[in-house]
Amino acid sequence: MAKGLKIAINMGGGDAPGLNAVTEAVVLSAFNRNWEVYGIKNSYEGLLDTDEIIRLTPEKVWHISSLGGTILGTTNKGNPFAMPITNIAGETEIRDVSDKVVENFKRLRLDCLIAVGGDGSLKIAYDLYKKGIPVIGVPKTIDNDLAATVATFGFDTAVSIATEAIDRLHPTAKSHDRVMVVEVMGRHAGWIALNSGISGEADVILIPEIPFDLDRICDSIMGLELQGQRYAIVVAAEGASPKGGGRIDKGKGEMGRQDVVLGGIGDFVAREISARTGKDTRSLVLGHLQRGGSPTTFDRLLSIRFGAAAVRLIAEDKFGSMVALDPPNIKAVPLEEVISGGLKGVPLEGDTVRTARDVGICFGD
Amino acid sequence: MAKGLKIAINMGGGDAPGLNAVTEAVVLSAFNRNWEVYGIKNSYEGLLDTDEIIRLTPEKVWHISSLGGTILGTTNKGNPFAMPITNIAGETEIRDVSDKVVENFKRLRLDCLIAVGGDGSLKIAYDLYKKGIPVIGVPKTIDNDLAATVATFGFDTAVSIATEAIDRLHPTAKSHDRVMVVEVMGRHAGWIALNSGISGEADVILIPEIPFDLDRICDSIMGLELQGQRYAIVVAAEGASPKGGGRIDKGKGEMGRQDVVLGGIGDFVAREISARTGKDTRSLVLGHLQRGGSPTTFDRLLSIRFGAAAVRLIAEDKFGSMVALDPPNIKAVPLEEVISGGLKGVPLEGDTVRTARDVGICFGD
Amino acid sequence: MAKGLKIAINMGGGDAPGLNAVTEAVVLSAFNRNWEVYGIKNSYEGLLDTDEIIRLTPEKVWHISSLGGTILGTTNKGNPFAMPITNIAGETEIRDVSDKVVENFKRLRLDCLIAVGGDGSLKIAYDLYKKGIPVIGVPKTIDNDLAATVATFGFDTAVSIATEAIDRLHPTAKSHDRVMVVEVMGRHAGWIALNSGISGEADVILIPEIPFDLDRICDSIMGLELQGQRYAIVVAAEGASPKGGGRIDKGKGEMGRQDVVLGGIGDFVAREISARTGKDTRSLVLGHLQRGGSPTTFDRLLSIRFGAAAVRLIAEDKFGSMVALDPPNIKAVPLEEVISGGLKGVPLEGDTVRTARDVGICFGD
Amino acid sequence: MAKGLKIAINMGGGDAPGLNAVTEAVVLSAFNRNWEVYGIKNSYEGLLDTDEIIRLTPEKVWHISSLGGTILGTTNKGNPFAMPITNIAGETEIRDVSDKVVENFKRLRLDCLIAVGGDGSLKIAYDLYKKGIPVIGVPKTIDNDLAATVATFGFDTAVSIATEAIDRLHPTAKSHDRVMVVEVMGRHAGWIALNSGISGEADVILIPEIPFDLDRICDSIMGLELQGQRYAIVVAAEGASPKGGGRIDKGKGEMGRQDVVLGGIGDFVAREISARTGKDTRSLVLGHLQRGGSPTTFDRLLSIRFGAAAVRLIAEDKFGSMVALDPPNIKAVPLEEVISGGLKGVPLEGDTVRTARDVGICFGD
Repeated sequence: MAKGLKIAINMGGGDAPGLNAVTEAVVLSAFNRNWEVYGIKNSYEGLLDTDEIIRLTPEKVWHISSLGGTILGTTNKGNPFAMPITNIAGETEIRDVSDKVVENFKRLRLDCLIAVGGDGSLKIAYDLYKKGIPVIGVPKTIDNDLAATVATFGFDTAVSIATEAIDRLHPTAKSHDRVMVVEVMGRHAGWIALNSGISGEADVILIPEIPFDLDRICDSIMGLELQGQRYAIVVAAEGASPKGGGRIDKGKGEMGRQDVVLGGIGDFVAREISARTGKDTRSLVLGHLQRGGSPTTFDRLLSIRFGAAAVRLIAEDKFGSMVALDPPNIKAVPLEEVISGGLKGVPLEGDTVRTARDVGICFGD
Repeated sequence: MAKGLKIAINMGGGDAPGLNAVTEAVVLSAFNRNWEVYGIKNSYEGLLDTDEIIRLTPEKVWHISSLGGTILGTTNKGNPFAMPITNIAGETEIRDVSDKVVENFKRLRLDCLIAVGGDGSLKIAYDLYKKGIPVIGVPKTIDNDLAATVATFGFDTAVSIATEAIDRLHPTAKSHDRVMVVEVMGRHAGWIALNSGISGEADVILIPEIPFDLDRICDSIMGLELQGQRYAIVVAAEGASPKGGGRIDKGKGEMGRQDVVLGGIGDFVAREISARTGKDTRSLVLGHLQRGGSPTTFDRLLSIRFGAAAVRLIAEDKFGSMVALDPPNIKAVPLEEVISGGLKGVPLEGDTVRTARDVGICFGD
Repeated sequence: MAKGLKIAINMGGGDAPGLNAVTEAVVLSAFNRNWEVYGIKNSYEGLLDTDEIIRLTPEKVWHISSLGGTILGTTNKGNPFAMPITNIAGETEIRDVSDKVVENFKRLRLDCLIAVGGDGSLKIAYDLYKKGIPVIGVPKTIDNDLAATVATFGFDTAVSIATEAIDRLHPTAKSHDRVMVVEVMGRHAGWIALNSGISGEADVILIPEIPFDLDRICDSIMGLELQGQRYAIVVAAEGASPKGGGRIDKGKGEMGRQDVVLGGIGDFVAREISARTGKDTRSLVLGHLQRGGSPTTFDRLLSIRFGAAAVRLIAEDKFGSMVALDPPNIKAVPLEEVISGGLKGVPLEGDTVRTARDVGICFGD
Repeated sequence: MAKGLKIAINMGGGDAPGLNAVTEAVVLSAFNRNWEVYGIKNSYEGLLDTDEIIRLTPEKVWHISSLGGTILGTTNKGNPFAMPITNIAGETEIRDVSDKVVENFKRLRLDCLIAVGGDGSLKIAYDLYKKGIPVIGVPKTIDNDLAATVATFGFDTAVSIATEAIDRLHPTAKSHDRVMVVEVMGRHAGWIALNSGISGEADVILIPEIPFDLDRICDSIMGLELQGQRYAIVVAAEGASPKGGGRIDKGKGEMGRQDVVLGGIGDFVAREISARTGKDTRSLVLGHLQRGGSPTTFDRLLSIRFGAAAVRLIAEDKFGSMVALDPPNIKAVPLEEVISGGLKGVPLEGDTVRTARDVGICFGD
């Protein structure tokens, strides 16, 4: 490709440790090719309001790879195909502003877009690609539930934070003969619960892929007591649900924490265990602690590799594709395949679930 | 004192990082004097049921100083002056079994007791001392609210864990323009909230010592917005309460987390901020994460110093006293003074509160 | 296979974070199948001296997965095909005692052996397998240089520790305008240097796979100075060497640190940079810090998966094979292939080296 | 004092975790009083070359409290009473440029100076105070050896890093039956070695205050072996020295690491232990790892308190004094007293040394 490319980069969806490392690697790789990088703030909003575009130089991204969050901001609301537009009277309506986004992109003489996001954001990126924006995708899902890549950045950090929390709960649970229920992220896939539960030596792991039976959980906890272990650690993915009984309604109101006030799955399970076993039972929601903070070394490296690979794909004219981890290599996957590949749950016959069962962890099934 | 002393040690109240380091130091210091140490499990219960006494040798405590929890177990229920006794029919009554405890102590030929605990446990220890048990106290309060000592182990760890959590919330709050309310420990004293709030660069700190006005908090948050900071971090001690309006009722039921279901102070403040400012506001309860896990280096050292000092006080026949930190030294304080000294709140004119105000932190007053 | 199997497990070579997690997983997986596990201490020595065999029960391995080191001990000396035997006069000769080892193994009615080790130990395991011991291998190489598996436990921990060290050196190097040279592990392969150097944002990375030219390194450092960065971080694998000039002789004497006294590659490079650029230059050898301590969550999980998979391979009668990571799965690889596969260096055209070059890191070539 | 003060701040000596937190607190405290802060780069050099002065606004110090190093730079060379001045011919001579510094300070209309530094820098600050610059001192010594304050920032971080390193060495030393000697900072005072050695459960601690006898150290190590512990951890302060035998000459050349090439105290002790006991013995120099990186929570808080207190002392016109920790308070100490108070070694009869002896740690005496 020609010299002097202008690359745009944006982020969509919830934040994940590693976003800044991706950004830094994109900027440095582009700089070393004499290309320019422009950060689009708040997903696609910056393409509607050019005040929200910033030139990213090596100085601006200097040593941000270890910082959590994202210097660009991210949002769940910036879908240009369904953008909430509020007028001066305060009325909001949902509009398709994608033509406007494409038009602005060209008007600004931007050459291509690196879109960092999860399945929703990547779908938008693909649709914009079909409308003429040269797009490279970078996968971002802290839940590790994107089928097209073996892993994404942020996941290792989330698992590490959850494991560290579980490690911290063991001694206090043990000292007081308590059951501790920890609710971790994972609406559709139980990867964080599964991996942190095994690493943190939980006794019970509840994941969306395996509906649970409360009696089996209580059997398991009381079985531990017969063997002399009078406490237990239960790790529950937020999307776990009881067998048959349908989904626990979390009641999401205007304010984020109403789910906890009404009680998430962790509170529900804790209440039931307490009622059925008589054991002192507490619950704890890790929530936003899992998203924040510095990425692990694994995630820093993966993010930097993703960022550099995205710029190489631009150099190779491979638009319409996404970088993906296929260990030990990074490869390109067509966005079309990424979208159709959908989400990746924990495979019930995979070695990780079998490992958990082998070492005696109960899934409540 | 004579050779061959038999020292008993027990723990009362909630657990705190450093209890095992105290235990290890007591055992090693005693071993090097050719004395024996016996661990009384679950506070004073072990003195009623000798199955609950274990001989502690150097091998048993080998390198436990960095482990969280306590190998002896701890409980809030083991008050021999008001012990819940359950008969075979399952009926429970509260009895004074202190004579029985003293009698058993002497029957077992134990020479003295190292009692590790907070104000409640130390009061019990003092009462047993008056009934004839040679007692040395070791202070334990993760909230740092005991007047007789400048600091206790576990507090630095709790502040560090809370600070680390606040650090992790900044990037995600910033990326999403959110207000995050973190509820930390501190029923009667705001030390953890104050110290972690300053270290973690919170914008608002709410402590029991300073009743807050919600409008002042919202003024402060919207003031930040005018200066370009569109997110805020609020740290609330669990015992904080609004001006005039009396205490938030937390509704403690049988199961620990009912407080959260009904909503603790963090949830209350988050709801109010959201309603009054319209900002996306979330809350998070750190809870048991603060008690668990490995002590910081500061707490390990302090615990080991306390344990060794307790054994030296035995050698010096200074029964009826407690070890205390008077930096840079450890000193002995009579238990009587400890009891009458009571709790230590955050001094409103102290330099730490002034520091917080100086750097622009709002207390809601 | 029949009930009641007796599994032996041993460790060979240097220690690596995760060995205890492997051990715990093997014991728990076997226990849940009603099998017994016996730990052979110090590699194969325990099979010559049965005092060195210990029965491993779930109690013995309770929550050891997060502990560094190995409860079984490990050694580089326990090669039964070339065992140093010392007689009572203190004379040592090298003997092949492998027949004795096989004979003892059968005499003790052990059914199979899980051998945890690097390429040397796995070769021994394979040779014993050919002599009739049913063997399952578990790969262990902190340097990540075994071709047959995408990763091994301990490596992520070593990279994390090295990255953390590099992070700590940046501010002090920057404050004092210094060049800091950090020597990390990696005799034959540069994985630790490469991954930690990228993650830690080093300016120069020296690995065995790319012989370096000191002038290129100095060009790069002075180039940074022209751009306003007056300090630099150099990460050197211990096996890195200058172009043409042959290997730096490290002079290994009786005592381990003679290498440093005579100067390792880090010291050599630091001296040369100082002499050629006049910049204040220091070196630091991370050494044993990289092997010790708690495994990262990634390594804990991988170790547990390896341990459980090894026991499943026994159940499936797949002796003569090794567990290996083929993300996201664990697979079995014949030991014969493992041995012939040899070592795995950093591929010069792989995406990780290209990433480093893309973001501007100098390899000195 | 009047409105609109202009405060200068500078740093002298080696860097220490917490310097940025001091800076941030000074800037925020001044900003909230409508005062301005100017950072003098590289100690006093900025007062000779005004290119090296930067206006510090809240934006410039935003959330730097957790960052290691110092945004202002620090140097050991900036003594205005003995400044090395290099002419264009490259010749350097030492000159007293203090009059020039005072003159520039006044010419720039600066109102006062916050000088952050150790005993050397504070002496300079005091001399400038006597020449008419209104000075407030902030103590900085990572070795904790300043008599006038109970603690300084950076020390807790250094002790924590050293303890973590010792923790990491235990498992590998144990797995291989080795003696590990760790050399930590502490030229004149053994605080870091003492505190990290107790916390990290070292077997031997060598400090400058207690000259050691190598035979006593070896007796102690072999005594452990008789008790079944076949490895040992020795922590040596860099300033420790053998009894009688005078100081180990470290041979400091132009390049920092010549000390290691010739061998520091750690290498010396390791060589001797190996020679005298025949045990596999290694040494490790922690070096710059101890200075770098993020301050602990304890140090962040202390730094912020120091910074805010320094600004309060300005408001109270208490020039010529230094902030100091007198737990739980911050107090002001006249600089004259600070200078005459001198250095603070480990008190041999203090409770920390007694604690170490009580738990069985050998000082080699």
